[in-house]
Amino acid sequence: MNQAAIYHRPESEFAYLYKKNLMHIRLQTGKDVAEVCLLHGDPYELETKRWFKKSISLDKWLSTESHDFWQIEVTAPYKRLSYGFLVKGIDGSEILYNDQGIFSVEEKYLLEGNMYFRMPYFQEIDRFKAPDWVKETVWYQIFPERFANGDLQNDPVGTLKWGSKEHPDRTDFYGGDLQGVTDHLDYLVDLGINGIYFCPIFTAHSNHKYDTIDYFQIDPAFGDTETFKELVAACHQRGIRVMLDAVFNHLGDQSPQWQDVVKNGEHSRYKDWFMIDSFPVSYTETNDFEFASEKNYDTFAFTPHMSKLNTANPEVQDFILEVASYWIKEFEIDAWRLDVANEVDHHLWKKFHEVCFNLNPDFYLLGEIWHSAQSWLQGDEFTGVMNYAFTDAIIGYFLDKKISLTQMVSKLNRQLTMYRKQTSQMMMNVLDSHDTPRILTVANGDKALMRQAEAFTYLQTGSPCLYYGDEIAMTGEMDPDCRKCMVWEKEKQDFAMLAFFKELIIFRKKYATLLSEGSIVWEKIDKVSGELILVREFAGVELQAVFNTGENELTHQFSGEVLLQQLTKKSKDCLSIAAKGFVIYQKES
Amino acid sequence: MNQAAIYHRPESEFAYLYKKNLMHIRLQTGKDVAEVCLLHGDPYELETKRWFKKSISLDKWLSTESHDFWQIEVTAPYKRLSYGFLVKGIDGSEILYNDQGIFSVEEKYLLEGNMYFRMPYFQEIDRFKAPDWVKETVWYQIFPERFANGDLQNDPVGTLKWGSKEHPDRTDFYGGDLQGVTDHLDYLVDLGINGIYFCPIFTAHSNHKYDTIDYFQIDPAFGDTETFKELVAACHQRGIRVMLDAVFNHLGDQSPQWQDVVKNGEHSRYKDWFMIDSFPVSYTETNDFEFASEKNYDTFAFTPHMSKLNTANPEVQDFILEVASYWIKEFEIDAWRLDVANEVDHHLWKKFHEVCFNLNPDFYLLGEIWHSAQSWLQGDEFTGVMNYAFTDAIIGYFLDKKISLTQMVSKLNRQLTMYRKQTSQMMMNVLDSHDTPRILTVANGDKALMRQAEAFTYLQTGSPCLYYGDEIAMTGEMDPDCRKCMVWEKEKQDFAMLAFFKELIIFRKKYATLLSEGSIVWEKIDKVSGELILVREFAGVELQAVFNTGENELTHQFSGEVLLQQLTKKSKDCLSIAAKGFVIYQKES
Repeated sequence: MNQAAIYHRPESEFAYLYKKNLMHIRLQTGKDVAEVCLLHGDPYELETKRWFKKSISLDKWLSTESHDFWQIEVTAPYKRLSYGFLVKGIDGSEILYNDQGIFSVEEKYLLEGNMYFRMPYFQEIDRFKAPDWVKETVWYQIFPERFANGDLQNDPVGTLKWGSKEHPDRTDFYGGDLQGVTDHLDYLVDLGINGIYFCPIFTAHSNHKYDTIDYFQIDPAFGDTETFKELVAACHQRGIRVMLDAVFNHLGDQSPQWQDVVKNGEHSRYKDWFMIDSFPVSYTETNDFEFASEKNYDTFAFTPHMSKLNTANPEVQDFILEVASYWIKEFEIDAWRLDVANEVDHHLWKKFHEVCFNLNPDFYLLGEIWHSAQSWLQGDEFTGVMNYAFTDAIIGYFLDKKISLTQMVSKLNRQLTMYRKQTSQMMMNVLDSHDTPRILTVANGDKALMRQAEAFTYLQTGSPCLYYGDEIAMTGEMDPDCRKCMVWEKEKQDFAMLAFFKELIIFRKKYATLLSEGSIVWEKIDKVSGELILVREFAGVELQAVFNTGENELTHQFSGEVLLQQLTKKSKDCLSIAAKGFVIYQKES
Repeated sequence: MNQAAIYHRPESEFAYLYKKNLMHIRLQTGKDVAEVCLLHGDPYELETKRWFKKSISLDKWLSTESHDFWQIEVTAPYKRLSYGFLVKGIDGSEILYNDQGIFSVEEKYLLEGNMYFRMPYFQEIDRFKAPDWVKETVWYQIFPERFANGDLQNDPVGTLKWGSKEHPDRTDFYGGDLQGVTDHLDYLVDLGINGIYFCPIFTAHSNHKYDTIDYFQIDPAFGDTETFKELVAACHQRGIRVMLDAVFNHLGDQSPQWQDVVKNGEHSRYKDWFMIDSFPVSYTETNDFEFASEKNYDTFAFTPHMSKLNTANPEVQDFILEVASYWIKEFEIDAWRLDVANEVDHHLWKKFHEVCFNLNPDFYLLGEIWHSAQSWLQGDEFTGVMNYAFTDAIIGYFLDKKISLTQMVSKLNRQLTMYRKQTSQMMMNVLDSHDTPRILTVANGDKALMRQAEAFTYLQTGSPCLYYGDEIAMTGEMDPDCRKCMVWEKEKQDFAMLAFFKELIIFRKKYATLLSEGSIVWEKIDKVSGELILVREFAGVELQAVFNTGENELTHQFSGEVLLQQLTKKSKDCLSIAAKGFVIYQKES
């Protein structure tokens, strides 16, 4: 048995409270293990009860290319647990794995209380809590400058005609605003989404507004606090949650704070708000607006226009926390999306979490983190992150064919093993965003392929997010091209795609609990034919999803109710599925 | 290559800031790896600089029976780091290991920014900070009821004559108090210790005082706040730090809060201070004073006399935090030792940490945790824990011979790999305490063996702690026997042992920096002869320590200055070391 492959980490995604007094325990092993059993009991009853004489078997839960992961759900009468693992190899060997490593299965080790892993007490206050509404949410991401122009009075000087350029430039303005969103809420209700993720709407210099000038004001080109208040109320009335995007990693260089530093140097009362090496602050321009070759202060990436905030400064902390609570208290927003969240310190996020959840225990905090994010997702910082790891895996296989089918499944499973179950439920699954090329462009305009990837994404744990305009088949390369004006002329909208998304969203919302809570079984992963069967099950209801990711037609025997399909033909109980086709059905019970 | 054995976890003990802007990166592999190289650079310069073309080699740092651990120290000009590993097997194979798993070494993967591990920004505020003074401290643990009776006026009714029983009973009182400690400070100075860890001194019912009645009062049998203030001042004057022991997991059943619950049931204003299932609170006595067969409230273990505090209750939190700050502000204590720390929630400890460190940035928080304690040692809860894992390993080999020499070294190394370097420096290394049999008793009275194990312990990373009376060769089985009255009659003290400890403590304090910061090389681990050579090195100074843990005499060539030795004979440059002997010398440079 490959003993060196075995891994467990107490009080992490390997051992956590899922619900009150209900604990999940996981173990990583190599691919050569036949069975894993749990020895467990009260730490103070080891000698009297000798509970290690009884063991229960873990489920083989998920597999990656290199490892198997095992999982079990347990409780404890006194809310305290000691536990260890008996691991049986397919070679017949057996070992004891505990807090001190690997041992032979002998009573002298089994009786050593200090050698067990521990969940010392089931602390409800420390449990990672996932707000239920997020599980039922299908998000719609709006880039406000490009969604709709509802108020021509607030258009900035030099505003271009809506959609007048096929490819928008980096500094174009088209007049999109909050009134435009309010005007189209019926469209969104009809589409079926029930959460809007707004890219930044606070006063800022650029069209993307990630260079904040004033966190307490709506950008004048977008409206004012009244417009926003009405928009939130209108959304809530329609059952739509509202998430705002905030940038606390840096401030725009046009902000009064930074301008004060530029003007007053080390005498500025804001000098400790930033990370400055020497005064006066300066940089050397290059051909690239977003790249300074020399600068004596920290910024986002190498742009001189976004100065990094010193979030270790209590004054900055108080300022940010005031922003956090202001929009919750005054406008009742439901969620914050936090930009460049990984480059801000954990101390701040813990306080941020506390402020938000004290105001609303059902609040949702979404971090922009493109890499693995375990240290932000322990329950006292973010609720979820943008799941770019899923994006990469799904696009990597379905669209780019850069990775194999087994690699994709391995990558998706790997992600699930990196987080608590309730954390995975809180991930935001995107195929594109304002920071990436649009999915239809990535699919080289192949709409069937795009739909297949979308259907697959909506089947995953986590809540899906639709980037504005994807539903009518808009295209766009990497930004600024992916930030085109929303197409409102009916004749230019793709109705088939729109109909598909409506169906997909209805499906997702109907099965929200199953898709969030349910088991994941990769029933068939056929690298040769490209047939992929994913089964999701919860409370006796079973969904089967068959994807033809190969080049030849497949046939699939089935009985049940078809919920969603593409490129399939039915004859009796047999379905033929063409290349790029798929079917999702509820199995007859 | 055993790919499944490879493991890294960003922002953990595998990747952390050691000093300001100085990062440590570690990798776990199997035992079949020839070289590990780090690819690293700024996340925003991957494409422009292609820094992955240059790699640097990690040191093979420590090994366990199943794994090798590799380590490297790096910095980053912009305080941001992307990194990945090139792992070369002894079989000639080579792989790329990054945030998404294991890949072939190909440019398409090396150019994928999202695939690297990340240290997004070197956040000084999040860095685990270790107070320097702890590294230089040799602790002395005092069980106040048994150290010395300095004030006969405060002896409780029924106090027995000092040391009148060979084996104290569980409920005996002997009159030890704080004045007794003050009276013997010169003894402690002479011994050389520079930190006192006091078992609880707050008002409580029992002789051990772990069943607190009033956290704001010194137990009347120990003195009063004035006595304590004088004691702290006297300690500080002599360069001795003071650590108090507090129990926040539970309250004693004689406390006014619990008594109020007993009396008023669900109408008690303290009913939410505890974890109570139903009212009135009750339990069924058994023959064992510390075991209730039925009780409707949570307690420590199964004793009905220590009611678990509901530390999720803000009122309880405020109460505890007030205690925490009171003794720091009013009495300037240097450290808290926290009893049953693992069974209290993380939320409380994070607040506790903040309160203490705001009052004194050099404060030391020591948790009583007997198992692995990673989740308490991330930098925002405890500074260290009582290192019982070291205790078990050292006793397990040196005294009990329950484990082999290689197993002991593997266990010690394993512990070091579980924590950041600065965390390991903050561990309290004990061979015994008020909760275990005394070390000389564990050694079956073999003083040479005891001294050998002590010398070995003092060579380890972490600060050693001497349990009162061990220095004069006191014995005692598991408590209450290990809590005998300190022997003050000179004729009953073991002077040789005392002299040994004085030398050992002088040695430890002289080489404190080296033993804390220095490298650890197990130069020889000879299972057959029992020869163990440990080399500690720092800043060009090298200590060699040779232990004869076998049965036959060893010879050892050496040149340098002998610092400490036992059972050795010298002839020219050759030292013969008898069984149970050892030598520690500074190598000639």
